Amino acid sequence: MSADNKIWIFDTTLRDGEQALRASLSQKQKIQLAHAIARLNVDVMEVGFPVSSPGDFDSVQRIAREVKGPVICGLARAVAGDIEACGAALKDAERKRIHTFIATSPLHLEYKLRKTLQQATEQAVAAIRQASRYTDDIEFSCEDAGRTPIDDLCYIIERAIAAGATTINIPDTVGYTIPTEFAAIIHALKNKVPNIDKARLSVHCHNDLGLAVANSISAVQAGARQIECTVNGIGERAGNCSLEEVAMIVKTRQDVFAPLYTNIKTTEIYRSSHLVSQICNMPIQPNKAVVGENAFAHSSGIHQDGVLKAQNTYEIMAPEQVGIRQNELNLTSRSGRHVIQHRLNDLGYSKDDYNLDELYQSFLALADQKGRVFDYDLEALVFFQNLQEQDEFYRLEFLSSSTHTGHVASATVGLRCGDNLLTEAATGNGPVEAAFQAIQRISKLPIRMVDFNLSAKGSGEDALGQVDIIAEFEGRRFHGAGLATDIVRASVLAYVHVLNMIQRAQQVDACKQARQRTAGAETE
Amino acid sequence: MSADNKIWIFDTTLRDGEQALRASLSQKQKIQLAHAIARLNVDVMEVGFPVSSPGDFDSVQRIAREVKGPVICGLARAVAGDIEACGAALKDAERKRIHTFIATSPLHLEYKLRKTLQQATEQAVAAIRQASRYTDDIEFSCEDAGRTPIDDLCYIIERAIAAGATTINIPDTVGYTIPTEFAAIIHALKNKVPNIDKARLSVHCHNDLGLAVANSISAVQAGARQIECTVNGIGERAGNCSLEEVAMIVKTRQDVFAPLYTNIKTTEIYRSSHLVSQICNMPIQPNKAVVGENAFAHSSGIHQDGVLKAQNTYEIMAPEQVGIRQNELNLTSRSGRHVIQHRLNDLGYSKDDYNLDELYQSFLALADQKGRVFDYDLEALVFFQNLQEQDEFYRLEFLSSSTHTGHVASATVGLRCGDNLLTEAATGNGPVEAAFQAIQRISKLPIRMVDFNLSAKGSGEDALGQVDIIAEFEGRRFHGAGLATDIVRASVLAYVHVLNMIQRAQQVDACKQARQRTAGAETE
Repeated sequence: MSADNKIWIFDTTLRDGEQALRASLSQKQKIQLAHAIARLNVDVMEVGFPVSSPGDFDSVQRIAREVKGPVICGLARAVAGDIEACGAALKDAERKRIHTFIATSPLHLEYKLRKTLQQATEQAVAAIRQASRYTDDIEFSCEDAGRTPIDDLCYIIERAIAAGATTINIPDTVGYTIPTEFAAIIHALKNKVPNIDKARLSVHCHNDLGLAVANSISAVQAGARQIECTVNGIGERAGNCSLEEVAMIVKTRQDVFAPLYTNIKTTEIYRSSHLVSQICNMPIQPNKAVVGENAFAHSSGIHQDGVLKAQNTYEIMAPEQVGIRQNELNLTSRSGRHVIQHRLNDLGYSKDDYNLDELYQSFLALADQKGRVFDYDLEALVFFQNLQEQDEFYRLEFLSSSTHTGHVASATVGLRCGDNLLTEAATGNGPVEAAFQAIQRISKLPIRMVDFNLSAKGSGEDALGQVDIIAEFEGRRFHGAGLATDIVRASVLAYVHVLNMIQRAQQVDACKQARQRTAGAETE
Repeated sequence: MSADNKIWIFDTTLRDGEQALRASLSQKQKIQLAHAIARLNVDVMEVGFPVSSPGDFDSVQRIAREVKGPVICGLARAVAGDIEACGAALKDAERKRIHTFIATSPLHLEYKLRKTLQQATEQAVAAIRQASRYTDDIEFSCEDAGRTPIDDLCYIIERAIAAGATTINIPDTVGYTIPTEFAAIIHALKNKVPNIDKARLSVHCHNDLGLAVANSISAVQAGARQIECTVNGIGERAGNCSLEEVAMIVKTRQDVFAPLYTNIKTTEIYRSSHLVSQICNMPIQPNKAVVGENAFAHSSGIHQDGVLKAQNTYEIMAPEQVGIRQNELNLTSRSGRHVIQHRLNDLGYSKDDYNLDELYQSFLALADQKGRVFDYDLEALVFFQNLQEQDEFYRLEFLSSSTHTGHVASATVGLRCGDNLLTEAATGNGPVEAAFQAIQRISKLPIRMVDFNLSAKGSGEDALGQVDIIAEFEGRRFHGAGLATDIVRASVLAYVHVLNMIQRAQQVDACKQARQRTAGAETE
C-alpha cells in the first residue's frame, strides 16, 4: 500500500475533546485514555496544550514518555512561549509533532487578533521556524479556514510550507461549511498552492450542523490525507468528526475509497468508545452511528429473523468488526481466579490493566450479592478499580438510611478521613440527599451539586448501578463515579470520590505553590 | 416564494422512529407527540403503519381526526390489504397521503421478495392505482434504492408516476451510500426518468455510517425536494436523518441554499426535541448537533468571554433560533396560579397542555419541598401530568425503606389497587430493589427489569430526579417514568407507572378479543 494512499488519523480526544468536558480529567485518566487511543492504532494523537497549565504540561510529558506507537502531538499558538513549552513537554517522545496555528479569516483577524493577513503570516512563519528546532514534524493550522478567502489561504499556506510545515490543516472551526464547499476548498488548495505536494493536507471539522464526518470524507475525496477527529466525536459544542464513523466509512466502502485506507484497528472501537464515554462522562445516544446501543440491528432485537433471509439484506457492517462480542459468560462465586483472568483476557484486557488480587476480592463480594456476574459487571469492576488512586483520604465505612412517605428521610454516614473515623447524621428529601448532607457535615466543604445521573449496568433488579455526579467546589468542577447494587450506596461512593479528588487537587495546588516559591527564590 | 423552491419536510418520528423504540408508545403518547410535531410546521407527518396492528390503526385514525395542519400519512406495503387499511385509517384527515413501497434492489428482490423487477413493478402499479381511490396524494418508495442499478430505478419510477404517484422516495435503507454517490443517483433520475417533472423527488436516509443528514442535503442540491426525517434522528439502528439538523443547515446557510427553504418553525425545535427524547426514552448526547446540551457555546460555559469580541466569531446559530430560552424564573410557594400559567405560556405551553388546578397543587407540594421551583421543574411537572391517565388502577400510598452497611436493605410499600389498599415488605440489595420486591409481592406479576436510568432535572442536592425504567412482561416491553425529589420514591413511581401500563394493555387485549369474537360470530 502506497504511503500516498494512507488517510492519516489524527486523534484529538485528549485536546479538543478534553477541552469541552464539564469536569477536567485527572492525569491518571488521561494516561489511561492515551493507552486506549494508541491501541486503536491512530497515526497521531494530540494530547494537550502544554503552555495552558502546568497540569497540561505534565500530562503531555508523561504521555510522551510512556505511550508508544503513534506520533505524540502538542498544540501551541504561533507564539514563542507556546512553542517552547510544547517542545519541552514532547522532548522524550519517540516520534513527536508540534501543531501550531493562527486565525486567518477576516472576522478573526479583525476582531480577535487585530492583525493583517501579512502580519499573521509572518508570525506563523516565525513559529514554524522555531518549532523546527525541536522536530521536523510540524503541523500548521489556519483557524476558521472555512470563512477565509481562498487566495488568503493559499498565501499563508505557501509560506508555512516554505518555512517547514509538513502538515497543513484546514479546520472548519465553527462547523459552518457543507460537504460540496469543503471539498471545493481542498481542491482549490491542491491546485493553487505551488508547493502543496511538500505537505500533507489535513482537515479538522466541527459538527455544529451535523456535517463534520461528511465534510471530512468529502475533503479526502478531494485530496486531503489526514482527518482530525475524536472518539465518539466529543469536543467543543456539538463536537468534532467521529473517529469511529470515518474509520468504518473507509473500511465499509472500500469499493469507493480503495486504494485509500486508514490504519485504524477497528476491533478496538467499541471498547475505546465506551472507555471514553465513561471516563469523560459523555453518554453515547442509542442511535449514535457505529457505537450506539441500537447501532446494530441484532443488539436492539428489532429485526425479525424472518425478514433476514440473507444477513447483508439489512447489515452493512458486522458488530464483530468494531469489537462487539456476543457471548456473555456467566460467572459465580465458585469461579476461580484463573477463570476471571482468562475472561478478562478474552475481553481484551491485559494483566497491566488491573490488579488481579484486588479485583478477585471485589468479584467475590459481587458474586455473593448478585449470584451471577456477567461480562459487563466484570468490566465495570475493572473500570472502578482503575478509578481509585493508591491512597484515598476519604473512605466510606458505613451508611444507613431510612425513608417514610410524608416524613423527611434520614441517613447516617461513617467516613474514614485519613486516620479518623467521623460519623454524622442528617435529614433530606430522600436518602441520597440526607446522606449527602451528612457528608457535608463531616467534610465541611461547600460543594455544590451540578449534575447527577444513574444508569444500570446490565439488566435485572440486581443490576449494578453506576452513579456519575458533577460537583463544583471553589469554581472547579469534579466528576465522581460510584458503583454498587444499592443506588443510595453508589451515590454516596460517587460523592466520596469527588471528596478525594478535591483533596488531591488541593495537595497538587499546595505542591505547585511551594515549587513556585522555591523557583522564585532561585531566580531572585 | 415559489413552490418549486420549497424543501418538503416529511417527519416519520411516529413511524420509522417509533418502530425502533425498546418499548412502544401508548396512543396518548403518540397523540401528544403528533401535536408537538405539527407545531414544528412539518409538511407531512407519517404516523403509522395501519395494517400492522389494531393499535397502530387506531392511533393513525385518531391523529387523522385530531391533528390539523400537516398532511397525515400512513405506510402500506404494495399489497391490497395494506392499502385498504391505510385508506380507512386516514379517511377523516383534512389532507392525507398513502405511502406505499416495494424493494427494488437485486439483493432484496432475490432474497426477500423472490420476484423479478417487472413483477415488483406490476405490484407497485396496482397498489398505486388502488391508493388513488382514497387520495390523489400518493408516495411511492423503492426500498434499498441505494443498492439498485440506476436503470432498474428509472424503469419502476417511470411506471409508478404514470400510475399516479405524486412523490417518489429514494431511501438509503441500510445507510450505505456517501453524499457524492447519493447526489449522483438523484441527478441521474432527474435526467433519465421522462415523466419525473410530474412528481416530487424525496429521500429517506439512514445513519449507519453517520451520513444521513449529509446525504439528504446533497440530494437536495441535486434536485430532491422532500426530506424524510425524524426529530433527534431517532429510528432503526443508528436512526434517520435529523429534522433539526436539516432545518438549521438550510436556514443557517441561506447564502448557499436560497431560494430553497423549509417551512419549519425552528423556534419549536428545542421543545419538541426534548419531548421526543423524554417520551421515547431516547437520550440526546451532549454533543448532538443543534439540540445537545453542549451544542451552544454559552450553555456549556466553555467559551471564555474574553475570546468573544464579536458574537459570531464562534457562534453560527443563536440558541433563541431553536427555541432555547435564557431566563429561568425562580418561583416559590408564594407564586400564584396566574404566575404559573403566565410562565407556562412564555415557555410555549397552551392551556390545553395541562390541567392548571392539578398542576398548581403539584407545584405547591414541590415548592414546599424544594423552596425554589425553576422552569425545568415546571416543565417536568407538566410532562408527568400528561403521562398519567385518568384512571390509574395502581397508586402509591406509602413507602418506607431502610438500609445499613453490611445488612440487606428493607422496604415497605402500600399500594392502592383499585379499591383495595395492599401492603407488603421485602428485602433487597438496596432500598430500590427491596421496594420493587415488595411491589412484586403485591402485584404478583412476573416483571423483568431490562433497564434503569436516573437523571437529575436541574442542579443542586434538591433537584428533581427522573427515573426511567424499561420492564418486560409476557414478552412485551413497557417504559415507566417517575419524578420525585427522592430517588427511591421516583424509582417506585416509575415501577407503578409500568404496572398501570400493563394493566391497561391487558384491558385493551381483552376488549379486542371480545370484539374479534363478535366479529367472528357475525361473519360466520
